[in-house]
Amino acid sequence: MGFIEHYDDLPMDWVGDWAGRRAALTPRHIALYDSFTQKSYTFQDLNDRACRVGTYLADTLGLGKGDVITLICRNRIEAIDLYLACGKLGIILAPLSQRLKKPELDDLLARLKPRVLVHENAFAELVATLAVPGSVQAVIEIDGAQNPFENVILKTEARAINIPLALNDISLYVHTGGTTAVPKICIVSHRQMVWNSFDILATGIVGAFRSVLITFPFFHIGGWNTFTPLLHAGVTSVLLREFNPGLILELIHEGRVENFGAVEAMLQFLIAHPKFAETDFSKVKAITAAAAPCSKAVMQVFLDKGIPISQTYGMTEAGPSNFAYIARTDSLEELLTNSASIGTSMFHCDAKIVDRDSGHEVAPGEVGVLCLRSPHNFDGYLNDPARTEKVISPEGWVYTGDLAVRDQDGLVCIQGRADNMFITGGENVSPEEIEQALMKHPAVAGAICAGVPDPKWGQAPVALVVFHAGKTVAEDELKHFCREHLAGYKVPKEIRAVASLPLTGAGKLDRHTVVGLFA
Amino acid sequence: MGFIEHYDDLPMDWVGDWAGRRAALTPRHIALYDSFTQKSYTFQDLNDRACRVGTYLADTLGLGKGDVITLICRNRIEAIDLYLACGKLGIILAPLSQRLKKPELDDLLARLKPRVLVHENAFAELVATLAVPGSVQAVIEIDGAQNPFENVILKTEARAINIPLALNDISLYVHTGGTTAVPKICIVSHRQMVWNSFDILATGIVGAFRSVLITFPFFHIGGWNTFTPLLHAGVTSVLLREFNPGLILELIHEGRVENFGAVEAMLQFLIAHPKFAETDFSKVKAITAAAAPCSKAVMQVFLDKGIPISQTYGMTEAGPSNFAYIARTDSLEELLTNSASIGTSMFHCDAKIVDRDSGHEVAPGEVGVLCLRSPHNFDGYLNDPARTEKVISPEGWVYTGDLAVRDQDGLVCIQGRADNMFITGGENVSPEEIEQALMKHPAVAGAICAGVPDPKWGQAPVALVVFHAGKTVAEDELKHFCREHLAGYKVPKEIRAVASLPLTGAGKLDRHTVVGLFA
Repeated sequence: MGFIEHYDDLPMDWVGDWAGRRAALTPRHIALYDSFTQKSYTFQDLNDRACRVGTYLADTLGLGKGDVITLICRNRIEAIDLYLACGKLGIILAPLSQRLKKPELDDLLARLKPRVLVHENAFAELVATLAVPGSVQAVIEIDGAQNPFENVILKTEARAINIPLALNDISLYVHTGGTTAVPKICIVSHRQMVWNSFDILATGIVGAFRSVLITFPFFHIGGWNTFTPLLHAGVTSVLLREFNPGLILELIHEGRVENFGAVEAMLQFLIAHPKFAETDFSKVKAITAAAAPCSKAVMQVFLDKGIPISQTYGMTEAGPSNFAYIARTDSLEELLTNSASIGTSMFHCDAKIVDRDSGHEVAPGEVGVLCLRSPHNFDGYLNDPARTEKVISPEGWVYTGDLAVRDQDGLVCIQGRADNMFITGGENVSPEEIEQALMKHPAVAGAICAGVPDPKWGQAPVALVVFHAGKTVAEDELKHFCREHLAGYKVPKEIRAVASLPLTGAGKLDRHTVVGLFA
Repeated sequence: MGFIEHYDDLPMDWVGDWAGRRAALTPRHIALYDSFTQKSYTFQDLNDRACRVGTYLADTLGLGKGDVITLICRNRIEAIDLYLACGKLGIILAPLSQRLKKPELDDLLARLKPRVLVHENAFAELVATLAVPGSVQAVIEIDGAQNPFENVILKTEARAINIPLALNDISLYVHTGGTTAVPKICIVSHRQMVWNSFDILATGIVGAFRSVLITFPFFHIGGWNTFTPLLHAGVTSVLLREFNPGLILELIHEGRVENFGAVEAMLQFLIAHPKFAETDFSKVKAITAAAAPCSKAVMQVFLDKGIPISQTYGMTEAGPSNFAYIARTDSLEELLTNSASIGTSMFHCDAKIVDRDSGHEVAPGEVGVLCLRSPHNFDGYLNDPARTEKVISPEGWVYTGDLAVRDQDGLVCIQGRADNMFITGGENVSPEEIEQALMKHPAVAGAICAGVPDPKWGQAPVALVVFHAGKTVAEDELKHFCREHLAGYKVPKEIRAVASLPLTGAGKLDRHTVVGLFA
């Protein structure tokens, strides 16, 4: 051990100052192309904007290290401005999904205790309904008639505002789908963001490209985790305000995109779009499939165009980049052959597959629970040590809850969940959360939910309900009720009334039977 | 703060296992081309060799974490085998320069207390003269008639030997030029090696190339610091047993080299070589100048071929990669215009220039001492806390001893040394060390040494001596005496006898006057 014992705890100027560091290294390179405004920004431009926003946050609003800003916004440059400004000042950015409903957002706001709420004018109606906690001293709008973000904040005269931060300081609070009605809030440190970027760069996923399209929303860690390595390595980001298959195909056709990540449903939308056949894909060098393995059929469409698709895998609590399949040969056939595999763990990420009961490592070919360990582990759930302890061990292993099997070559395949979570269109969903929403309806005595195979979304939620004696409600009314309490993708696509819920021999809810009933 | 407080201290499987991680990700890609044997090795091949060597070290020699292996060897694959095997086991590799002489090597061996001494047969005569300490249980030869490395160690049946290491565990002991007769031994952690590689990858120096020639010797950190990022990013290393301008030009001509680093003297040797004019440089995309700024004249030769040369800067104690000049435009003219600048500090490295006396930061345009801070700081000098405290502050700032000035654009130029060290052919040399060697001669009463400008080596040592009354020795005898005590590059190219040594007004040795005398 040397003079400094823990560099994790040592405040350093560069930590969080993504914008400033990149602007110092390559000020005039193009950092960002905004496909909505069709404007380009250099790394120096991004840093200038971040300094203006940061000066406003520090001097006008009096914010400092550890304060929280919540953000309800699509993928706009203003979200990037805030992320970069917060990084300079140690302010914690807490992006909230605009897909969530009032009860979910109210709960998150109450727990995050933000000092500022920034939102896009497009979500002004939603924001007006929210129970804004007393901690909030300012609500700031992006766009709209006044557009204070553009007309006031970005007009601020910038001063040097960067402060030294430690890698262990917090960068983001990110909400994720929970196993109960209460969404989890992940504490994401600067250490996690930096190391995850390292894993992406060393694995060679984005560093070799000149321009990468950001397809994932900034209210997930996946959005920031696409943008950050690009900034880190000086690669041009292509910004998309929201998922729009026609626009993506145009950007591809114009040669603006060398690489992008996608969940399978996004790729299906591209394929189904009328422009797909005539789009020139010659500049696209690779596609990265995320969230859940991409099917062979969809993969084949892109391989036929000579574009390799690599599977990746990860979770917010452990990465979010943990596994990648890197082609071992130049043969696209090889990608198809191993299309079900997520490959191997990334360079700086340990992985083991353990028996669900004993916790001991299983042999190749045997199914167990995948556990991950790296410096890009998250720092726990906000104010929830009990839940944190369930997911991360004292030796640093994060329990993913995903069942996995490793073959003799070391390639890993995901086999499903050890718990009941399922993935629909790239979003993690817990059936328990949907069941609890259904149970809030006065007519519902019991509910069971599961994810069933869906050609478009991978999986989709369905439910069975038992009504209280003498009561009954139409399926449409129940769906409408759900829609008021849950983000749209969590609303069951089918709800059937039954006399009693299926139970296992141990008397627990039998979700397996539900899947069979709807098959 | 999360569940794990210090990831620096958390043992993880991947730390040190460079070979295993890369082999898992891209087993069949070419890791290394050995220009001496003309053999190529995949990442899987390198890992297989490292596992065999590691199994021998662990099972036959009983070595484990914290044990030290010293190595006297040119840039051979066996050195890489040892580096990778030691990384798996937590064994500390201490490479020793074959350019050092017996007194220097004896001193280092006594302080390193190695359990094993590995050497190339080419240096068997040198090794036979050394005072091998009692800690050494085995002396192992590479090459030679028996060649136990090839015939025994690499024939070992490998088992899984990788153990979890923490980033704060030690990877290398690296000796560097000291300001006294005692060479300094830098403690280089895995954290330092990993983070330095990150800085090189994020700065974009090597990640974009497919094959990079390793020109720096493995007895300096520069050799390992070239190799490690290449392994990290899956780029092919081209191995050169020792500096050989004709062979380098052949490798370039064959298109095997897209990038290499060099000190200016190496580039001068290339330019002076008869093959230079006819060499096809079309595959070389960039050259990185290290150790000291490359002159405009030499730079111009390569720019005329369309090859950009970027200056870099660093020191073992702080990097060794700390600064880089990255072209801000596509114009090669710009590189010439700023050829004296080392650019800006790398992504994860803080830099400040402080007043020598007050320690406060100086304004742009003012000269001060350059200080550096990053997670790739070294972990101190071995068993020398007093010297360590002089070079690194409690806030993590490493005092480089280099005088520097920053311009209004943030670009930094080195202006010389705050102490007396100089650089000859890329090697740091302390005049005090040479003076103390001269003083060991019975006829010498006093000595003063300095580095003077040299067209080939940048700077070269010269000396003045005062003899004891009635004694006198020829210059050649003094040089011969030096050659027995010092590495060749430290031997003064000119030694003059004087009646008294030049002193400053304060009565200290006046090395400035020496430089003037030899100008």
